[in-house]
Amino acid sequence: MKKITDTEQIRAANRKQIIGALRTHGPLARVELCDITGLSPATVTAITSDLFSVGFLKETSGTAEGNQGRGRPKVNIDLNPEAAFVIGIQPSVNELAFVLGDLKGNIRENHTVSIQLDRLDEAQFITLVIDGINDFIAFSGVDRNRVASIGIAMQGPVDSATGTITWSPALSIQNVPICEALESRFNIPVSIANDSDIVALALRHLNNYSHDSNLLTIVLGQGVGMGALINGQLYSGSRGAAAEFGHVKFNLEGPQCRCGGRGCIEAYAGDYALYRDAATIMHLPMSDNHRPSEEQMEQITAELKNGNEALQRIYDQAGRVLGLGMANLITLLDPERVIVTGRGVRGYEFMEAEANRAMKDALLPSHTPDIVESFEWTGDLISTGTIHLGLEKSD
Amino acid sequence: MKKITDTEQIRAANRKQIIGALRTHGPLARVELCDITGLSPATVTAITSDLFSVGFLKETSGTAEGNQGRGRPKVNIDLNPEAAFVIGIQPSVNELAFVLGDLKGNIRENHTVSIQLDRLDEAQFITLVIDGINDFIAFSGVDRNRVASIGIAMQGPVDSATGTITWSPALSIQNVPICEALESRFNIPVSIANDSDIVALALRHLNNYSHDSNLLTIVLGQGVGMGALINGQLYSGSRGAAAEFGHVKFNLEGPQCRCGGRGCIEAYAGDYALYRDAATIMHLPMSDNHRPSEEQMEQITAELKNGNEALQRIYDQAGRVLGLGMANLITLLDPERVIVTGRGVRGYEFMEAEANRAMKDALLPSHTPDIVESFEWTGDLISTGTIHLGLEKSD
Repeated sequence: MKKITDTEQIRAANRKQIIGALRTHGPLARVELCDITGLSPATVTAITSDLFSVGFLKETSGTAEGNQGRGRPKVNIDLNPEAAFVIGIQPSVNELAFVLGDLKGNIRENHTVSIQLDRLDEAQFITLVIDGINDFIAFSGVDRNRVASIGIAMQGPVDSATGTITWSPALSIQNVPICEALESRFNIPVSIANDSDIVALALRHLNNYSHDSNLLTIVLGQGVGMGALINGQLYSGSRGAAAEFGHVKFNLEGPQCRCGGRGCIEAYAGDYALYRDAATIMHLPMSDNHRPSEEQMEQITAELKNGNEALQRIYDQAGRVLGLGMANLITLLDPERVIVTGRGVRGYEFMEAEANRAMKDALLPSHTPDIVESFEWTGDLISTGTIHLGLEKSD
Repeated sequence: MKKITDTEQIRAANRKQIIGALRTHGPLARVELCDITGLSPATVTAITSDLFSVGFLKETSGTAEGNQGRGRPKVNIDLNPEAAFVIGIQPSVNELAFVLGDLKGNIRENHTVSIQLDRLDEAQFITLVIDGINDFIAFSGVDRNRVASIGIAMQGPVDSATGTITWSPALSIQNVPICEALESRFNIPVSIANDSDIVALALRHLNNYSHDSNLLTIVLGQGVGMGALINGQLYSGSRGAAAEFGHVKFNLEGPQCRCGGRGCIEAYAGDYALYRDAATIMHLPMSDNHRPSEEQMEQITAELKNGNEALQRIYDQAGRVLGLGMANLITLLDPERVIVTGRGVRGYEFMEAEANRAMKDALLPSHTPDIVESFEWTGDLISTGTIHLGLEKSD
């Protein structure tokens, strides 16, 4: 939690609140802005005046309904989407993707470059990203003076405080001070977050959860990630190493995990583990580097749909472990909602019955499994979240 | 997180920061107050002037060392401990305890009444507490106009937001709106918290942890409780039902828990469970109401000291489950520190080896069990925490 030191910071926080309310709710009358933010009319007027003067806001006429009455037509305040832009960067295995978002948080452009990132040293990687940003700005035709911030979504652990990539399956280099390098080149704020955190940010905005809610996002994929919003803020712990839900363990004699430990949740429910266990009982092609492809995973899901019982037992076990893990999350953190998503959610329907049974058995009467819901995966969640990560710095 | 709505709230937050710094660090020079709080000299001067005018502050001469030099003698600012008092109330099984704390957070008086609280209806209980407070004020001789707030420590779940006792082993009544009743009678703020949260507040102050740190306190006793400070604030979840560490489960076929579930951490490591398991293999007298007495638990600890191997195996298992639970807490929340305390910490030395082994096996390389430490139990932790709970409202 930030220390409240002076009027500047209050003003900045209020400004963020007003921009956030307009982004979530769309055009609003001044009185609605007061209601939603809890700010006084005087404060709203002062801050919106500032925001008008820099072009962030525009006036729109109210709804047709609002204008049917007599008297002055209703005037709403709206964000001017083109007043500022954010560039999102997503390095992943053999790919570097760019996305352009506007002040409203809409995705405006996408561009993906295929490249073997794991062959690059630090200087080459940073140069590639800088050149990529310049090309993308040129390609999208956006005024570069309006690019207000950059957000980076990274697979694997990052240190958000120092803006460093700790390590990533996409790269062979480690401890890369990427934010500093881009900030000194572009002179705008640059933020980085783990992709599970990015998904959590996207879901908060897509689903309009309360901005001070406790929202946990479980991201199924090769591993099992988690993004935790505590009191509406990304929670990363005292050393940036929190929310390692995939490495919660129940049984130290359980299956082998990639981390070196045994019995981790992802050693049951990660794609690599599901494929490994399936390959133990079925004829399946070797998976590359213990990273089964989307096609390989879909082949398994097709078998499940055909009613393969031995395979279903593997998913039942994954569901039980996932359910017990989510029950313990609810017991410890009492979140408003737990959302299961990620590429691996394609198989969640085959885990869900056992997950729900385990939650029912494991939860106290004061808790309920009904707060868990699944959310269909789309890559846009990463793009949207990356834009919102950037917007948090530029608002 | 509170919304920042206006200057009043900022001022209140800054005031809290200054009082908190003086309480933690003792007498400070103005320049030290600026350093510690990060507030500007102008803000510190404005707020300390206000605090002087209401008598909360006094000037003290600086250290002897500071005065040896030439020039103006150094003048420090200190809290005036007698400027305000807090009354703490601790209802427990067959007891109602009162404590008086001063503005510095020191315990000034203690008074305990023996009474069977579980025989009282709601009106009788509230009347008893009100009369008890009046008697305690008279008995302690404190000026009742200086009693600024009341804090209540409760065994069992409470709803801090509405100030209600949900239920407690000390009472037969449920959903008691105790804070409202006392506030309307005494016209001062009244706060309530679960006793595990109270212990966490006490440890934060006793041990001078950073006020924005993530500090988890495990409270061993009849059950296994947890107090969670997240970003320095008590965390109670979206419905006030978080931090139920004692009901985290690893094995749904584990031992029976009082909650109705199986395999909860407290079904291994709570006093009731340790005694129950010990009584299964040893000749031990029946424990009252499944609540073994302190003497009964000390009898077990004495046997452990004598090297009773069968009993040690029970404590080894409790240690393994506790260790796995703490490993998962660290994996999920990456706290600055985990403190194991509570009356049940008397037996922790016999669990510690297995707890450490489980943590070592279960933690990722990026985490360490070294952040876990035990803290000797003293009932003063509850008194101190209750005073600090009250002070949070009166500062």
